[in-house]
Amino acid sequence: MSEFERIETGLGEECGVFGAYDMDGGDVASSVYYGLFALQHRGQESCGIAVTDTYGKRKVLQKKGLGQIKDVFDEEELDKLKGNLGVGHVRYSTAGATRQENAQPLVINYVKGTLAIAHNGNLVNAIELREELAYTGAIFQTTIDSEVIAYLVARERLNVGKAEDAVKNAMKKIKGAYALVVSSPRKMIGARDPFGLKPLCIGKRDNTYFLASESCAIAAVGAEFVRDVLPGEIVSFTKHGVTSDKSMMISPDKQARCIFEYIYFARTDSRIDGVDVYHARLVAGKALAKSYPVEADLVVGVPDSGLVAAMGYSEESGIPYGMAFHKNSYVGRTFIKPRQKDRESSVKIKLNVISEVVKGKRIVMVDDSIVRGTTCANIIKMLKKAGATEVHVRISSPPFLHPCYFGTDVPSNDQLIAHSHTTQEICEMIGADSLGYMEVSKLKDMVGDMGFCDACFTGNYPMEVPDGDISMAFEEL
Amino acid sequence: MSEFERIETGLGEECGVFGAYDMDGGDVASSVYYGLFALQHRGQESCGIAVTDTYGKRKVLQKKGLGQIKDVFDEEELDKLKGNLGVGHVRYSTAGATRQENAQPLVINYVKGTLAIAHNGNLVNAIELREELAYTGAIFQTTIDSEVIAYLVARERLNVGKAEDAVKNAMKKIKGAYALVVSSPRKMIGARDPFGLKPLCIGKRDNTYFLASESCAIAAVGAEFVRDVLPGEIVSFTKHGVTSDKSMMISPDKQARCIFEYIYFARTDSRIDGVDVYHARLVAGKALAKSYPVEADLVVGVPDSGLVAAMGYSEESGIPYGMAFHKNSYVGRTFIKPRQKDRESSVKIKLNVISEVVKGKRIVMVDDSIVRGTTCANIIKMLKKAGATEVHVRISSPPFLHPCYFGTDVPSNDQLIAHSHTTQEICEMIGADSLGYMEVSKLKDMVGDMGFCDACFTGNYPMEVPDGDISMAFEEL
Amino acid sequence: MSEFERIETGLGEECGVFGAYDMDGGDVASSVYYGLFALQHRGQESCGIAVTDTYGKRKVLQKKGLGQIKDVFDEEELDKLKGNLGVGHVRYSTAGATRQENAQPLVINYVKGTLAIAHNGNLVNAIELREELAYTGAIFQTTIDSEVIAYLVARERLNVGKAEDAVKNAMKKIKGAYALVVSSPRKMIGARDPFGLKPLCIGKRDNTYFLASESCAIAAVGAEFVRDVLPGEIVSFTKHGVTSDKSMMISPDKQARCIFEYIYFARTDSRIDGVDVYHARLVAGKALAKSYPVEADLVVGVPDSGLVAAMGYSEESGIPYGMAFHKNSYVGRTFIKPRQKDRESSVKIKLNVISEVVKGKRIVMVDDSIVRGTTCANIIKMLKKAGATEVHVRISSPPFLHPCYFGTDVPSNDQLIAHSHTTQEICEMIGADSLGYMEVSKLKDMVGDMGFCDACFTGNYPMEVPDGDISMAFEEL
Amino acid sequence: MSEFERIETGLGEECGVFGAYDMDGGDVASSVYYGLFALQHRGQESCGIAVTDTYGKRKVLQKKGLGQIKDVFDEEELDKLKGNLGVGHVRYSTAGATRQENAQPLVINYVKGTLAIAHNGNLVNAIELREELAYTGAIFQTTIDSEVIAYLVARERLNVGKAEDAVKNAMKKIKGAYALVVSSPRKMIGARDPFGLKPLCIGKRDNTYFLASESCAIAAVGAEFVRDVLPGEIVSFTKHGVTSDKSMMISPDKQARCIFEYIYFARTDSRIDGVDVYHARLVAGKALAKSYPVEADLVVGVPDSGLVAAMGYSEESGIPYGMAFHKNSYVGRTFIKPRQKDRESSVKIKLNVISEVVKGKRIVMVDDSIVRGTTCANIIKMLKKAGATEVHVRISSPPFLHPCYFGTDVPSNDQLIAHSHTTQEICEMIGADSLGYMEVSKLKDMVGDMGFCDACFTGNYPMEVPDGDISMAFEEL
Repeated sequence: MSEFERIETGLGEECGVFGAYDMDGGDVASSVYYGLFALQHRGQESCGIAVTDTYGKRKVLQKKGLGQIKDVFDEEELDKLKGNLGVGHVRYSTAGATRQENAQPLVINYVKGTLAIAHNGNLVNAIELREELAYTGAIFQTTIDSEVIAYLVARERLNVGKAEDAVKNAMKKIKGAYALVVSSPRKMIGARDPFGLKPLCIGKRDNTYFLASESCAIAAVGAEFVRDVLPGEIVSFTKHGVTSDKSMMISPDKQARCIFEYIYFARTDSRIDGVDVYHARLVAGKALAKSYPVEADLVVGVPDSGLVAAMGYSEESGIPYGMAFHKNSYVGRTFIKPRQKDRESSVKIKLNVISEVVKGKRIVMVDDSIVRGTTCANIIKMLKKAGATEVHVRISSPPFLHPCYFGTDVPSNDQLIAHSHTTQEICEMIGADSLGYMEVSKLKDMVGDMGFCDACFTGNYPMEVPDGDISMAFEEL
Repeated sequence: MSEFERIETGLGEECGVFGAYDMDGGDVASSVYYGLFALQHRGQESCGIAVTDTYGKRKVLQKKGLGQIKDVFDEEELDKLKGNLGVGHVRYSTAGATRQENAQPLVINYVKGTLAIAHNGNLVNAIELREELAYTGAIFQTTIDSEVIAYLVARERLNVGKAEDAVKNAMKKIKGAYALVVSSPRKMIGARDPFGLKPLCIGKRDNTYFLASESCAIAAVGAEFVRDVLPGEIVSFTKHGVTSDKSMMISPDKQARCIFEYIYFARTDSRIDGVDVYHARLVAGKALAKSYPVEADLVVGVPDSGLVAAMGYSEESGIPYGMAFHKNSYVGRTFIKPRQKDRESSVKIKLNVISEVVKGKRIVMVDDSIVRGTTCANIIKMLKKAGATEVHVRISSPPFLHPCYFGTDVPSNDQLIAHSHTTQEICEMIGADSLGYMEVSKLKDMVGDMGFCDACFTGNYPMEVPDGDISMAFEEL
Repeated sequence: MSEFERIETGLGEECGVFGAYDMDGGDVASSVYYGLFALQHRGQESCGIAVTDTYGKRKVLQKKGLGQIKDVFDEEELDKLKGNLGVGHVRYSTAGATRQENAQPLVINYVKGTLAIAHNGNLVNAIELREELAYTGAIFQTTIDSEVIAYLVARERLNVGKAEDAVKNAMKKIKGAYALVVSSPRKMIGARDPFGLKPLCIGKRDNTYFLASESCAIAAVGAEFVRDVLPGEIVSFTKHGVTSDKSMMISPDKQARCIFEYIYFARTDSRIDGVDVYHARLVAGKALAKSYPVEADLVVGVPDSGLVAAMGYSEESGIPYGMAFHKNSYVGRTFIKPRQKDRESSVKIKLNVISEVVKGKRIVMVDDSIVRGTTCANIIKMLKKAGATEVHVRISSPPFLHPCYFGTDVPSNDQLIAHSHTTQEICEMIGADSLGYMEVSKLKDMVGDMGFCDACFTGNYPMEVPDGDISMAFEEL
Repeated sequence: MSEFERIETGLGEECGVFGAYDMDGGDVASSVYYGLFALQHRGQESCGIAVTDTYGKRKVLQKKGLGQIKDVFDEEELDKLKGNLGVGHVRYSTAGATRQENAQPLVINYVKGTLAIAHNGNLVNAIELREELAYTGAIFQTTIDSEVIAYLVARERLNVGKAEDAVKNAMKKIKGAYALVVSSPRKMIGARDPFGLKPLCIGKRDNTYFLASESCAIAAVGAEFVRDVLPGEIVSFTKHGVTSDKSMMISPDKQARCIFEYIYFARTDSRIDGVDVYHARLVAGKALAKSYPVEADLVVGVPDSGLVAAMGYSEESGIPYGMAFHKNSYVGRTFIKPRQKDRESSVKIKLNVISEVVKGKRIVMVDDSIVRGTTCANIIKMLKKAGATEVHVRISSPPFLHPCYFGTDVPSNDQLIAHSHTTQEICEMIGADSLGYMEVSKLKDMVGDMGFCDACFTGNYPMEVPDGDISMAFEEL
């Protein structure tokens, strides 16, 4: 799937999280702003920043809104967010469930003061937990899992002396995927689910600590990458320093990092759990070259996420790499999509073929996935019209066959071409001369020894998952 | 205080509430919209509408925003709010506490479905209740009392079979002023605190029932006024009809309607608890004429709230009534106020004297209140400059001396001129030739036999009140 | 016609103009802002301010936009408009012709520098002039007459030494109604058409001179009213002082001030050409009482423009004056009007009857005009429903029968109830118990000795007028 | 200069133009919208669309605004622009001169009806022409050259029978760079200055003809590229077909296409005057490899405009090509730039180095230009910090040394590092290990036999140019 197909077909990640804590008491809102900018690819539906002054009134100031960072915040508002502890969030959401009240961070007052929670991921037992909470008098003002987590933390906090322990006790109850950044009145806490489904890492710049979904955000604020938060680890930052609680960790072979972070979600320049995303994609491209060699003149990638895998294919196969497409970078959410009565096509507006590059050539075209197949078919058509004599499609992920319960918004089965067609059929439907999907068995080459989750390809979920479409369930509650 | 002084000095009401329930299943959002329009004078800071389809999915759709009704809603959005049960709210707030998340109605999911709550008033025991709730694991996402009420209703609902009873049980715990409009999945509930501090009334149009803070909103939607909700009464509207629970009512002589509704807050065309606001103001003007007669040529009122009392003074005294001022109706919240460097004055821009009317005349000027005295002084100056030979000021309320704990936002003592000066001193400070305040003893003439609250003038609170400034307390929590 | 009927039926004035010139070099943008606020009733469609620094670069800075003053300008933008000479404009326009490019002031560069022109009125020979100009190579970027005037001034300026003389020579060519405020690089010029159809007056505050459509705007900026610009007079303000050119003046008995300024357009607190608007309306009310006496209990005015005439009727007849209506001041242009499917009526939302005042009474209701009759009929219905036993309607202007060619946007004949019905028929159609229109013969009592234009009632135009609808002609060109 | 340095340093093109004419009478506004999208890189300051219905009233409907296409137009507004002939424009402008009134297309009424003009380029004799026009009574409402062209066309049209001939006569008077798209009531006209400084081409889709600054816009609307408009040619499209007037053409060896279109302005996928932009950049990269060979491990391009030249360098040198940077595509004009007090750097937020790719390697970094040198220095620093052992900079254009008078907004000399420093000095200042600029003598390899303009590098202007900064001159007039 080319990147711009994302919005239309609905394959998406739920969130990006970012935290900053300046031990010297300086304001961090602008750092959170720039950190979120680097995570904007993880969600453009809504965003928010909540800050606390840990040396002052410890009151949370917040600003949230629908849209991208650059649209929600202006300089004046950023300046108002005074505080040395900040939590930020960008949220992806399908159109139907876009709601102002679901924007994060979630800021709550509870018995011990104020908490701001930013959460990336999805719980699989949220419905049960909500019901359980409701039966003891809880009320819910959003449809996001973060509210369940907030409740659990608030309730556990009544029994334990430290916010970190409340987070740990809450983690014992919740099941699913989560990377959390929490600000309590005096500390910043980061936590990652024991499977490590969602990424989270630590950065440092002078006396300011950062937490971020991806290392690219650490780089964006000019900080040094320190390390990844470990799957199941809870890290805590206070004026006294940094502490770590690893008691929730599980055996490494049970860990299940989302492989799709490497294939598609994460930025090319990020490094997650010791593996460069660039490297993983390069390896995927090489694997494709080994599995599906073909005689051709040029390897091209569909921008932007197919480019590195295409380089890998080129490197392995010896076929030259080229730039076949120009992507229009001005297209955004407010862009008016062509309607039935318009004569233009959405793909043409977003992507154009550079004829000079492809004409008369046999092309290997690498992309990261195929969802409905229509975009892919259109691109192949454009290549052939521009003079390509053959188009061999290589996809750097296996076919989607199973739903994700951990926060990746995979389209329903009837929209997935791979669900009801064989590779051969798909090849014909999209008009390719040959088609090769990444083999499941080779995914492990991308990430080395690490445990990872490939359930969307294999159905092998790392934990028990519910029946049915859980995201709808929340909305309906 | 002239009406336009309101925003600047901060004397204000907290809210207006409105509800509509169409037993035939028709959409009510537009009726709620027009109803709120008629209540806009009760709050321009934020507003919201939440609707439910009682015959369908019973899911709440909502839209809230900062600003006036006409700015927050457009036709498209109104059309999206499909449902035959709707709750609306307009909120007044001092600038400091303006927050998107404090806009109402508050919509919550709880164990029995969804509730939307619109609340006008202030609780005096909200802090204790919040603390109590927090100690059993409650989390708070706003700083409004309505959230406390929502929690109590949700928790009580676990023990009782009907939403009305949950409201009643919650009412047993909360203390203070409230007019509530609640929509549960299948019914609309209205409730008023036992003292009747805040108004609420019932209207009907065909098979649609309405609840509104003031009868003017009932008229605005073309409905018939049915009756007031009684102090302490709970009314419930379902497809089976209307029920009433009066078990929370207290003895009529303990009832304590806010006298300021009649003096200033309510619209001239509203009727509250059987007393026309117009009538009450006319009576107040007559009382002033009896208490403070003066030889003069013309009686004028400061627009808009001083006009009717001026007519009363004229009627009683036999001195002709005239229109001395033109009020600029285009000034609103986004208006840029004159700054130090500007040569214009705020009063001049909003109000102009019609010289022809006042020149060479001895004027009786009636207004509803004096807060800081500066506006009043400016108006007197303008009148004299326009040729008035004498200006006798008559104020249709006694001097403010005590804070209100029930939702009226009275400025702090140091801003209240009456707090540190005698009437004679104030008279001199504002440049009037004489000054007379409504006598406390005559307030009862305005409203007849009804019990009313005059605590802001007398300090006689109808219930125990906390020490200190409670509104700040909430923010600080 | 009640004031709020204005937008719906389309009776409207074209503009308000304002100018400020600070001889001491101080910035005037904020004064122009506040001056325009006082003229906002003359047009809410678009507005603009253009300023020049006569002691600096003499470059014009401008800001124009659609909507009201308070919506178009914010503090930051106002501060950017540095200059001691400013021209402002508010524009009324029917919906169809709303265009950003027609907003005024019109700012042009020509051979002698920069001019900003604000114009109130309409030319009757604009089409001929445009054609003539076009045939010598002129291009037009707007559909407003002001552009024609600008061209003529620019061309004449090539032949004469002073901008005032260029204005004068242009005035010799244009025919129709105009009040002009012009800023040239070093001076402010005001001019009024020889008939005096549109008003313009002069004010002063220290060393700052003002020009304004109405004296209320002079008062709003805290300045002293100096005098009216005379019909046909050109006044010029430079650092050397004020000069006047009266050579274009015509005999006073030919002057033709728009009588509708006094009846409806101007603010009650303005004084135009020596006559107080308040006074004129009071006289009109008295005249109605003499022409159409009736036995009744109460005289009421339809807000806001009917109020003073109602007072006049009351004074003359001895029948008490009362306040029968509450007008909702929050309704504005962005308000969603009730649609067919809504059950509410537009009139009810904007206006409510105070039952207490009218019930059981015989009412004399005074309004300034009747356009289609529907609003009037609705109000009468509301009064009767509120208990009025009789409603006698008195209209403080004669029936509209003829189009205005001078800038007043009168609805077309088929919308004017008076065009096709007798007074008796109208009385029945609106459900009144009696109806009396101001007699044409008594209009002169309102304004004394002055020459005035009553062509919309009589067809006696002060100059030759074209056939057909000229406003459309411009659009079509 | 990396692409994102563009806004900050002010190197920019003035405009992109687009036209569409549907002979079958269908609406073209949406095609113009999509066409402008493909030209958005040529200007993001303001944009506009003007349409005419050649078979109907032939009235121009227009919409213009500040900002990008996607922000200025929404679906509703696009639908209102009914007409089968449309002209569109995107405008680049330095911040100081951003004005609503300078947005294009310029729509004028003149003696023969209505014209809409979209213009890309700059006239060198605009001041003289403006003065000349002003002395015959012209007034100017903008500071753009297009208004001068409009005047000339309008005046010439009085003497000739066809709009094309008026355009031709106007072309005889204007000197400078221009690509024009003009809609007259019944026809679409395209014209290009005799030197061909600015590009313009023709496309066709069924019976709809298109004109566009670049062929990528023809592709975006799904049309076939027909041919380029020739330098000096006037093409005209009516219901009777297409005509061409080549009488203004000059000898091919005098033609002077802007070489910067190939180096930087145009999109990689465009083809201008028979030369693919991709090809030209590839050739430039190869030329750099020949002129400045170096021993290295990897060639990388600065996104986006340096990428293709980097490929050319790689191809020629045999050094592998790699992707060293991730560019954040969410950064736009509303992005808050880091301030002094922020700790982040603008470059880091927009661009991140992929460490895995560069560490331990000797890098050849190709970019298209260097303006101030600061961005380049920052990028080199980032590369070295990421582990690059050497960074050899190759610039695919010669150093800027001379101002452009034809519409390219080159920073003033004191901002141009090349103006006051030798290549060796610059190399040291930016921290590069070596630095090579494209040689002027090799520019011709990029574009083949065509005549081109390289005045900004050589000072060899194709026509006489004025002294001083002409853009300022216009503003000051």
